[in-house]
Amino acid sequence: MELEVLQERLEKALNIANKIAGSKTLLPILNNILLRTDKNNLIITSTNLEIASQEYLSANIKKQGVITVPSKILTEFIANLPEGKVKLVEKKNQLQISSGNYKSIIIGMAADEFPELPTLDEKNAVDFEIAVDAFEEAISSVVITASNDTTRPSITGVYFNSFKGQLFVAATDGYRLSERRLLDKIKSDIKVIIPVAALQEVLRSVSKETEKIKILIDDSQVKFQFDLVEITSKLINGSFPDYRQLIPKDNDINLVLTKDEMMRVVKLAGLFAKESGGTITIETNKSENKVSIRSIASEVGENSSDIVVEVDVDGKINLNSKFILDALNVVSEEKVQVGFSDKMKPVVIKNEISDDYIHIIMPIQS
Amino acid sequence: MELEVLQERLEKALNIANKIAGSKTLLPILNNILLRTDKNNLIITSTNLEIASQEYLSANIKKQGVITVPSKILTEFIANLPEGKVKLVEKKNQLQISSGNYKSIIIGMAADEFPELPTLDEKNAVDFEIAVDAFEEAISSVVITASNDTTRPSITGVYFNSFKGQLFVAATDGYRLSERRLLDKIKSDIKVIIPVAALQEVLRSVSKETEKIKILIDDSQVKFQFDLVEITSKLINGSFPDYRQLIPKDNDINLVLTKDEMMRVVKLAGLFAKESGGTITIETNKSENKVSIRSIASEVGENSSDIVVEVDVDGKINLNSKFILDALNVVSEEKVQVGFSDKMKPVVIKNEISDDYIHIIMPIQS
Repeated sequence: MELEVLQERLEKALNIANKIAGSKTLLPILNNILLRTDKNNLIITSTNLEIASQEYLSANIKKQGVITVPSKILTEFIANLPEGKVKLVEKKNQLQISSGNYKSIIIGMAADEFPELPTLDEKNAVDFEIAVDAFEEAISSVVITASNDTTRPSITGVYFNSFKGQLFVAATDGYRLSERRLLDKIKSDIKVIIPVAALQEVLRSVSKETEKIKILIDDSQVKFQFDLVEITSKLINGSFPDYRQLIPKDNDINLVLTKDEMMRVVKLAGLFAKESGGTITIETNKSENKVSIRSIASEVGENSSDIVVEVDVDGKINLNSKFILDALNVVSEEKVQVGFSDKMKPVVIKNEISDDYIHIIMPIQS
Repeated sequence: MELEVLQERLEKALNIANKIAGSKTLLPILNNILLRTDKNNLIITSTNLEIASQEYLSANIKKQGVITVPSKILTEFIANLPEGKVKLVEKKNQLQISSGNYKSIIIGMAADEFPELPTLDEKNAVDFEIAVDAFEEAISSVVITASNDTTRPSITGVYFNSFKGQLFVAATDGYRLSERRLLDKIKSDIKVIIPVAALQEVLRSVSKETEKIKILIDDSQVKFQFDLVEITSKLINGSFPDYRQLIPKDNDINLVLTKDEMMRVVKLAGLFAKESGGTITIETNKSENKVSIRSIASEVGENSSDIVVEVDVDGKINLNSKFILDALNVVSEEKVQVGFSDKMKPVVIKNEISDDYIHIIMPIQS
C-alpha cells in the first residue's frame, strides 16, 4: 500500500472509527483499524463485533494494499500532524507515516486476522431517508428513557415501529416511556429494536455538513449511511412491550405550565429530596388556583413552591424529580401539558401544542 | 436574624465559600457555612481549618443574628432561585429562605460550634498589592512544578521570596523547577511558602471585576483581600530549597525554537514513548542545522521529527515529554529558548525575549 491522503479528512475519519474500535483484551485485533484501498479510495474500517463503521476517503493511491494498525495511537498521531498531505506506506505489516519533517512507523498486524464484517441484505431490506436534524431531535428525546438493564435486552434499545402509516421511535425502562413521531409517512412495515449504542455512534459521527441519513433495515441488521460513512449494527432480538396500551387516553387533571418555571421548582424540591431518592409531591388546589410542589420532609429541611395556574380538579401525586427534569429537558415548546389522575396511572408530559412527542412516568406508590 | 439580600450576590458569595467548606466527616460543622450579620453586612464564612474565606455582602438587615447551615444544599438552593431579593430568617437554628413563591427551611447548627477563625496579625504583617492579571499569570506558570508529595511539605507550596529588591515566586517537585518574577520592586524581606490549594482558591474566587489583590503576610499566615472577599491560609512550615544555585548560568547548546512547532513534535514523539514513561530524545546536528526529536524505539513503533534551526554544537539529551509540554504551555512568547549541556545539568526553557520566567527540567539519566 502506498498513498497520499489529506490530514484533515483522515483525522475526521479516524475519530469516528476510533470510537468503535475498542480496548477489549479478549480479541486484540478489535483495537485495530483496518486500512484498505479500493481503486481511488482509502477505506477505514473498525468494529466491536456489535457495531461496525466503514468510511470512504478519496486518496491518491500509488499502490493498492491493506493493513491493520492500533487505533488509538494512529488516531492521536494523525490528529497532531499539520494540515495537508500525509503519506502512508505499508511494508511488512508496518505502516510508515510521513508529513513534511514528521516521520513515524506504527507496527500493525496482518489484515487477514481482522473479523469479516457482516453484510446487510440490501435486496430484501426496507429503507428510508430522514433529515439529520429531525433524526437527532427524535432520538435524543427518547434514548433517555431506554433501559440499562442488560438482563432485559429488548428494552435496552429504541423501538422503531410503523403504526397507521407513520413511523415512531419509542423507549422505556419500565418506570417511564417516551415516544416520538419520526416520519409522517412510511410505506413499509417496520418493527425493530436498535441498540442505543449504535444510535449514539451515528449521532456522534454526523458532521455539520451532513444533511440526510439513509437507514436500511433487514432481518438482523441496520445500516446508517451518510456522507461517505456507513455504520452497521446488529438489531436487538426480542419483542418490545405493546406500549400504546400503557399511554392513558385521558387524565383527571390537566395542567398547562411554563416549562422553565416547572423546571425551577422541581429542581428546588429535588435538592431536599435526596433521602427519599428524589421523591417530590405535586398537589393541585382548585379553590386557590395553584399547584404546590414540595419535597417530603427530611433531615436537612423542607421546601415548597407554588405555581399560580388554572386548576380544575384537586389532586396529589408523588413523582421522582429526576424523571420529571429529564422529560422537561427534551420537551421543546415553552409551555408543557402535565396530566395525571391517581397513583395507579402514569403521568403524561407533552408539548402544549405539538403532539409529536409523549413522555409518561409512573407515580411513586407511597 | 432577619434580612434581605440579592440572589445574584449571595449566589456568587456562596460559590466561593462552598468550595472551601468540605465534606469532612471528622468535624461535620466544617461542612457548614457561617452566616453572620454585622451592622449592614451579611458575612459569609467557611473554613477547612487550613484555609478560610470571609465575604461581606451588603444586605437589608432587620434583625441581627448568626447561624450555620450545610453548605452544599444552601449553595445549590440559592443558585436555583430567580434573581432578585431573597429573604433569610433564622429561628431556633433553622434558616427560612423565601423568594416569591419559593419557600424552604434548612436545618442548621448552633453557630458557637463553628471553629474560631485564625486572625492575622495585621500590625506586624508585611503587605503588598498586585494586579490580578499579573498574579494569575505568575501563579499559573509556577504551580505546575509544585510537588504533591505530602511527605515533603516544604515543596508542596509556592515559595514567595524577595531577592535583590524584587519579589519572585518559585515551585519545584525535585525533577523540575520554575520561577517567575512577581514584582519589580519590593521593600520588605519576604520568604514564605504558601500552600498551592490556597493560591488556587484565590484564582478561582477572583471575578472579572477584580482588579487588584492585596496580600498580607505575618509569621504564620497569609491573607488575600480583593473585592469584598478575604481568603486566609496557614503558611507551610519548613525551608524551601536554595534553588538559585540549581539554575545553570550558561549552557553548551542554545536553541531558539518556535513554540508551536516544538509542542507538536514533542507531542508526536510522546505518543510513541508511553512504554518508557514518556522519555524522548532531543539531538542537535550542527552540520545539518537541525534538531531531531524522537521516541525511544518501542513495541508500537517509532517516531522521529526534524526541526530546521540554527545549531552551533552537536548534543543529545533524554527528557520526559510531559514535562517539556508543561513548560511550553506556560511560556507566553511565540519563540522559546531551550538550553542544555549534558545529562548532569538541567535543561533551561525560557521565553525568547522576556527574562521574567525560567523553567528547568532534569534530564533522564539513561
